[in-house]
Amino acid sequence: MPITTTSNTNAPTQLLRVKNETYAYRRFGSGLGRPLLCLQHFTGTLDNWDPAVTDPLASGREVILFDNAGVGRSTGKVPTTVAGMTTHALAFLDALGLTSCDILGFSLGGMVAQQIAQQRPAIVRRMILVGTAPRGGEDIMHLEKPSLARHLGDPTLKGYAVLQKIFFAPSPSSQSAGAAFVERLAQRKEDLDTASGPEVAAAQIAAFREWEQSSGARFADLKDIHQPTLVVNGLHDEMIPVSNSYRLIENLPNSVLLVYPDSGHGSLFQFHDSFTGQAAAFLASDSPFAPY
Amino acid sequence: MPITTTSNTNAPTQLLRVKNETYAYRRFGSGLGRPLLCLQHFTGTLDNWDPAVTDPLASGREVILFDNAGVGRSTGKVPTTVAGMTTHALAFLDALGLTSCDILGFSLGGMVAQQIAQQRPAIVRRMILVGTAPRGGEDIMHLEKPSLARHLGDPTLKGYAVLQKIFFAPSPSSQSAGAAFVERLAQRKEDLDTASGPEVAAAQIAAFREWEQSSGARFADLKDIHQPTLVVNGLHDEMIPVSNSYRLIENLPNSVLLVYPDSGHGSLFQFHDSFTGQAAAFLASDSPFAPY
Repeated sequence: MPITTTSNTNAPTQLLRVKNETYAYRRFGSGLGRPLLCLQHFTGTLDNWDPAVTDPLASGREVILFDNAGVGRSTGKVPTTVAGMTTHALAFLDALGLTSCDILGFSLGGMVAQQIAQQRPAIVRRMILVGTAPRGGEDIMHLEKPSLARHLGDPTLKGYAVLQKIFFAPSPSSQSAGAAFVERLAQRKEDLDTASGPEVAAAQIAAFREWEQSSGARFADLKDIHQPTLVVNGLHDEMIPVSNSYRLIENLPNSVLLVYPDSGHGSLFQFHDSFTGQAAAFLASDSPFAPY
Repeated sequence: MPITTTSNTNAPTQLLRVKNETYAYRRFGSGLGRPLLCLQHFTGTLDNWDPAVTDPLASGREVILFDNAGVGRSTGKVPTTVAGMTTHALAFLDALGLTSCDILGFSLGGMVAQQIAQQRPAIVRRMILVGTAPRGGEDIMHLEKPSLARHLGDPTLKGYAVLQKIFFAPSPSSQSAGAAFVERLAQRKEDLDTASGPEVAAAQIAAFREWEQSSGARFADLKDIHQPTLVVNGLHDEMIPVSNSYRLIENLPNSVLLVYPDSGHGSLFQFHDSFTGQAAAFLASDSPFAPY
């Protein structure tokens, strides 16, 4: 009898061989909804997906967490462009035999999601973009900024403790939500993914720098993305400021914006009950229009 | 047996004498929710509340529509400041004996709502601000702008047909939603309110000009509003641009932003199913935090 797992706390990591690469992923949950491909943030692995976000969504659909090339236990070199990461994501979807899915793209993953929607529109039904930026966006992942560097360079912060500082706002309520997030991530004890090293970070930072460049009319490429899109951001996001989400919805023709207060890059984790409720309602809609 | 009305299409207009004024209002619906005071837009009367917005909300609470002084069948002079309008709104609430309510403030009504929250915080539990601006906001109701003036000065547009043009985006989908909105308003056939004349418009425009002025640090007054607040805007609002909603949530300490695509000032009417669902979920929350 196959074991049906419904949580990222215990879903087994699977490996899929595609041409010259092997991709690591987890797939769990079930329901009437389209499979939801989840694309991860800077240096994040499968273990960085908060079960408080993935698991409620997995009650209505399959959730598919994916390690792009060179991340976690996926083989290969981390691409230095979002376009390169998109090639891997599409190869993975094709190898799974998925011809249509919904996408949750967080941060770097949101950039890959946009690029997928542009390159292969038929494969994307609805898209949720959290804490991300359009090509040509501003102040994308400048880790040298004092507000980030003071935490990233703090020798007393280890492992997930860094995430609590840089993914959450400085307020006591946000930091408390960050501590709960770290505890939830730590619930997974076995079959852990390989943590990202400095090579992963360097390649992904190069991809951010390339993504900040825009040729031609700024944001014009977003006009071609017609899928209903839900854009979500924390108001005090220091890693990818909320202004990038303003620019996204001002240029995506079919998108709704939801901004949370008192939160940073990890707003979806801080307000997981609200976020998963909103996301599930958005994904449940069959309307050609984004409002839900 | 008292007739319980649940729709703005047939709710009787009531009059409440308070000191030297008589205020016109409608009160309908029932449920466990706090009464919802609805504060109306520029030149709008009780008849301008879309039943597709008021009626679903009235299924969970009393909805109270209010004509400020000099508007509709309320007596008195239209104040030329938001503060003046706030004095009347508070006198009305006090005369009704309401010590706590929720508020839906649309456009001009959203400014009055902010001022109520500042002057009498105890009376406001939760607040929904749609298509409005903070004090010191930008490009507030400049009817001389070509995008608005061409409709306001069009002799072929009469009555509600003007609203279809200026409350909705130029796209076919938004204009179609505008036509449906106008039909819904026209369903009320009896006990109609008195339409606003040029004196009402002139005084309210003066109030907008005064509201654009800011003394002291811009938006600093918003920091004192701690009520959970839901801010909603149509992306293509020509009357009070969406940037004002960005400034609202950036400065209100406890607010969520929801922006709708393909819509103008009347986004709540265009996406009435989504809006009333979101509003009802927001109002149903007892959390001290705005996310719902």
